[in-house]
Amino acid sequence: MAVATQSLEQLCINSIRFLAVDAVEKAKSGHPGLPMGAAPMAFVLWDKFMRVNPKNPQWFNRDRFVLSAGHGSMLQYALLYLAGFDSVTIEDIKQFRQWESSTPGHPENFITAGVEVTTGPLGQGIANGVGLAMAEAHLAAKYNKPDAKIVDHYTYVILGDGCNMEGISGEAASFAGHLGLGKLIALYDDNHISIDGSTDVAFTEDVSKRFEAYGWHVLHVKDGNNDLAAIEKAIADAKAVTDKPTMIKVTTTIGYGSPNKQNTAGIHGAALGADEIALTRSNLKWEYAPFDVPADALNHMRKAVERGAKAESEWNQVFASYKAKYAKEAAEFERLLSSKLPDGWDKVLPTYTPEDKGLPTRKHSETCLNKLAAVLPELIGGSADLTHSNLTEIKGEGDFQKGQYQNRNVHFGVREHAMGAICNGMALHNSGLIPYGATFLIFTDYMRAAIRLSALSLAGSIWVMTHDSIGQGEDGPTHQPIETLASLRAIPNLTVIRPADGTETSGAYKVAIANAKANNPTLLAFSRQNLPNLAGSSIEGVTKGGYILVDCQGTPEIILIGTGSETNLCVTAAEKLTAEGKKVRVVSMPSTDLFDEQNAAYRESVLPKAVTKRVSVEAASSFGWHKYIGTEGEAVSIDRFGASAPGAVCLEKFGFSVENVVATAKKVLG
Amino acid sequence: MAVATQSLEQLCINSIRFLAVDAVEKAKSGHPGLPMGAAPMAFVLWDKFMRVNPKNPQWFNRDRFVLSAGHGSMLQYALLYLAGFDSVTIEDIKQFRQWESSTPGHPENFITAGVEVTTGPLGQGIANGVGLAMAEAHLAAKYNKPDAKIVDHYTYVILGDGCNMEGISGEAASFAGHLGLGKLIALYDDNHISIDGSTDVAFTEDVSKRFEAYGWHVLHVKDGNNDLAAIEKAIADAKAVTDKPTMIKVTTTIGYGSPNKQNTAGIHGAALGADEIALTRSNLKWEYAPFDVPADALNHMRKAVERGAKAESEWNQVFASYKAKYAKEAAEFERLLSSKLPDGWDKVLPTYTPEDKGLPTRKHSETCLNKLAAVLPELIGGSADLTHSNLTEIKGEGDFQKGQYQNRNVHFGVREHAMGAICNGMALHNSGLIPYGATFLIFTDYMRAAIRLSALSLAGSIWVMTHDSIGQGEDGPTHQPIETLASLRAIPNLTVIRPADGTETSGAYKVAIANAKANNPTLLAFSRQNLPNLAGSSIEGVTKGGYILVDCQGTPEIILIGTGSETNLCVTAAEKLTAEGKKVRVVSMPSTDLFDEQNAAYRESVLPKAVTKRVSVEAASSFGWHKYIGTEGEAVSIDRFGASAPGAVCLEKFGFSVENVVATAKKVLG
Repeated sequence: MAVATQSLEQLCINSIRFLAVDAVEKAKSGHPGLPMGAAPMAFVLWDKFMRVNPKNPQWFNRDRFVLSAGHGSMLQYALLYLAGFDSVTIEDIKQFRQWESSTPGHPENFITAGVEVTTGPLGQGIANGVGLAMAEAHLAAKYNKPDAKIVDHYTYVILGDGCNMEGISGEAASFAGHLGLGKLIALYDDNHISIDGSTDVAFTEDVSKRFEAYGWHVLHVKDGNNDLAAIEKAIADAKAVTDKPTMIKVTTTIGYGSPNKQNTAGIHGAALGADEIALTRSNLKWEYAPFDVPADALNHMRKAVERGAKAESEWNQVFASYKAKYAKEAAEFERLLSSKLPDGWDKVLPTYTPEDKGLPTRKHSETCLNKLAAVLPELIGGSADLTHSNLTEIKGEGDFQKGQYQNRNVHFGVREHAMGAICNGMALHNSGLIPYGATFLIFTDYMRAAIRLSALSLAGSIWVMTHDSIGQGEDGPTHQPIETLASLRAIPNLTVIRPADGTETSGAYKVAIANAKANNPTLLAFSRQNLPNLAGSSIEGVTKGGYILVDCQGTPEIILIGTGSETNLCVTAAEKLTAEGKKVRVVSMPSTDLFDEQNAAYRESVLPKAVTKRVSVEAASSFGWHKYIGTEGEAVSIDRFGASAPGAVCLEKFGFSVENVVATAKKVLG
Repeated sequence: MAVATQSLEQLCINSIRFLAVDAVEKAKSGHPGLPMGAAPMAFVLWDKFMRVNPKNPQWFNRDRFVLSAGHGSMLQYALLYLAGFDSVTIEDIKQFRQWESSTPGHPENFITAGVEVTTGPLGQGIANGVGLAMAEAHLAAKYNKPDAKIVDHYTYVILGDGCNMEGISGEAASFAGHLGLGKLIALYDDNHISIDGSTDVAFTEDVSKRFEAYGWHVLHVKDGNNDLAAIEKAIADAKAVTDKPTMIKVTTTIGYGSPNKQNTAGIHGAALGADEIALTRSNLKWEYAPFDVPADALNHMRKAVERGAKAESEWNQVFASYKAKYAKEAAEFERLLSSKLPDGWDKVLPTYTPEDKGLPTRKHSETCLNKLAAVLPELIGGSADLTHSNLTEIKGEGDFQKGQYQNRNVHFGVREHAMGAICNGMALHNSGLIPYGATFLIFTDYMRAAIRLSALSLAGSIWVMTHDSIGQGEDGPTHQPIETLASLRAIPNLTVIRPADGTETSGAYKVAIANAKANNPTLLAFSRQNLPNLAGSSIEGVTKGGYILVDCQGTPEIILIGTGSETNLCVTAAEKLTAEGKKVRVVSMPSTDLFDEQNAAYRESVLPKAVTKRVSVEAASSFGWHKYIGTEGEAVSIDRFGASAPGAVCLEKFGFSVENVVATAKKVLG
């Protein structure tokens, strides 16, 4: 039997390899190459270092493991199964990539307990890892006491060549180096193969030197296939360097063990086939049937259950003593972990009357953020180098910097994409933090993949997006969103809110904070320019997405539907039309997403089917508005790119004026 | 007068500075800091090196200049004005950032002759520059002869800290280093300031070391404010290194000359104000009125006109002699420059009948690409490391690699965003090349900013996107587009086409190639899975966006509207409904964008207003479909994220079956 011919370590490593080989073969789909090559480093990491409790995957102080090279998902499922997580049984592995299995094609945190973040889109995982490490550093700086370290874990990431080619990983690594995140340890599976073949065809840079340039501690394990001692030493050395993140380049062979396919792109993303599997079994002296894990290997790996229980139990003692000494901090910390909000938190959100000075909604956003920050210590975030344009600074709070991790103002640099994934990582630390990331609305294009992942993976990030229309002005069409709102509203499970004034901005934040605690992201779109405070605007209205702002007696002849900075045009246009004897309703529609979630009766009460004459007014694309204006309606919109000129000129020239709204309404009225 | 107190060089440099200062002050908007700091390097570059013909901005063999730090647009406008381009007069500069001026907020190639690419969204310009340099290298390798170099120019880029923080610049620089693009020279305006203040708050990596890691030749000018000789030497040294791109770090002071604001974020993006301008004038001993350029400076800079005319004239002679010796190559080259297509090019596009084997549209795409590549030497492109999934290889053609620039198969690596901007750069080389870039449809999210810029800046790129729905299957929701089509259709001036079968794929390419020559981009969405060839599908129909594929006698009771892989479901559903006595029309709608461009009569003929019972069928979000199905219609769609399972299972489970289309139609029929 194999036990006689290979060490316990090799037995464990080959168990990982063949679980991957067999699962991919059964599914006839998947990526065996990475798990076969990265099995040794993953084994050493999980056997010698990872502190997790398989029976309580959400134990707070666990080490976080991220498989940034998410296509190698079977590596992670094999580890979870072998370590004793209930979320992945051998039957689950046999259902790899099948409908409603707990073992989907790529690791999905919302499906499989033990998976921390959703990976697959390359480069996201390592950037999530930076966010996880930042969350740890922040909470540690804030809550740990000299005599009680209640926050103390590492974040480990396995990433591949593909991750390292993506720009987002460079952004995130540069930022992690800047921050000196010593408890972030990345293992780079340097296998020299990507889908197009050898990395020689496209990727010949010196990755280690690049990470050194970012300020990382860089190590190299030359034989990642066999030199387990070198892997163990490298990880130990990485842990010993506490002021820099560490990148360990581990040179491996993709598909290790497959005589004909290892070290080729052919094994990256396809089943080996029965013949090659037989040869691989023979080559690795693996005498076990498919999905059969030798008892010695399983028993050894399952020691993780006992280790994990002990680790959690020890931590519970530490926390109990912490709680005894530091009751106030412990109470706050426990509230964070509970995902609960403090009583009355939303009372700090201001409301306004038309007498209050008109301000840009980005300015109201600043007020909300600051008032919320005072009552919600879990609010942490910042801007991608537009702090004083986005107005996202928490006043009186310091900057989150190396050695100053207790602070909450994060300067992400001009790194929108990494900012997105870092916020997601902080949210998915599942410690109650509410991260926010800000830039100009147009630059959501740079971070769209991360915004999508926030919605997919239930990361309660808040996206604070300012300069939300051609009202942006002089910067011109490269900076003026047109299709941007539509493109974001189309994302499932992302709530987009574009408030009309100060009160609606408070409503937007009320929704966003509640969403965050329910693990859902929210995107807020704010104006650069001043807007009047409207009579009748309400927080309650915002929570319903759309509501009647101005109404007439009886059934309206026409409904004007506005969002954000154009809502006030609708109000004034309605006054003029009313003066001419028309029966006009104005609907404020800060969020079509929320409106669509209301019941049919409410929607009918706001937009009665019988009233077919409708005009939407939004300084953005008409795309998507026909759902609300119907076939007889008109959209006052902009369906071309914008132009460079003062914002007021742009708005006027493109038809966002009371006169044009009135004229369009009359056209619709016929 | 100033002439006595400063050199001619300083006079020119200060002319640039004060044009920027005065234009921003007049507009009360703009970014004076970069032009003031980068004026010396820009002056040396344009005075000593740039070969352009101001009176013929499109002269083919000009050096290309890209201001990647596009917010510093006044630097570029000042250079164009001083060098004698007719597109920017002093009156135009006085209209900086005003409605319909030729001096918009950021450089826009489609507005201002002499501007090569549209910049402002950071990092795009340096990646465009890589594309420009690739175009030059490709054409040089293909057309130059030992005795006649008709393609021989440099690409110069000025980029800033912001560009260098963006991931896209890292991707592009890594790829440029890999390719050894020796005629790409980037000047990095190292001024240590970004909007949030000192780069110390977010960006402390060693940029030079990073570029060395990418394989670049790296130089440093320590005093970029005053050491003109060092700048000149660095550029000369850069030109001398022909096997690597060069990055020259030029350390400067942002807002140089402003006593109180230089070296602060305050001067990055705001007017100086009258008081500080007076102090700056005094400090730099500038005695000229606003917008007044000393004659000596203007005369000196305007020598560019004579130099340019001479350069073009010399090139014309070289080309004449080339044409005499190499008539065939010259004819092809001239055709490329003319933007004309060869006669009968579209005859190579195949059509199919239902008897032909059903294939995935990505496979038909491969056929089209290969047939077109045989008749269109200007077709060049590839995939972001998914060549054999996207099926984008030109068979029998070599790989575009260092020293093998004549080849047309580009391996972009896993760098979607850079791929996008590189393709745009190749298209905007304006030499007739038709670049294409490919990845999975979902990963347009990674390159969306570049796709948008292709549409805005009139870059005729072709985006080849495969695996276009949940039919993608096992990879699961991270890889399955849902909202992606809607988000792309919303982009102005981007034609999105999702063909239903082989013939429609040919139609899609016919549109895409014609679009490319008209400087408009096209995005093609192809299926992973097999699709039957449909009776009645046509190339002509695709060019109209939507057309009647199956019709009934008389006025239809219901219209089924399908796109791409769901069109055949509509056809079969119509057969079943017809068998039950219903009058059914099927409209194939491969491109809502093209359909919207048709005249009202045509649109009415396809979707008569009187027929209000309509069903759209697309394995994607319903977002945007209400425009076509109206208030009484239904969308067979998927408005949640997908799932990991075999593609056919996903489609069936989410309702993309004939049965569900029939059931939905019956529901609509009532």
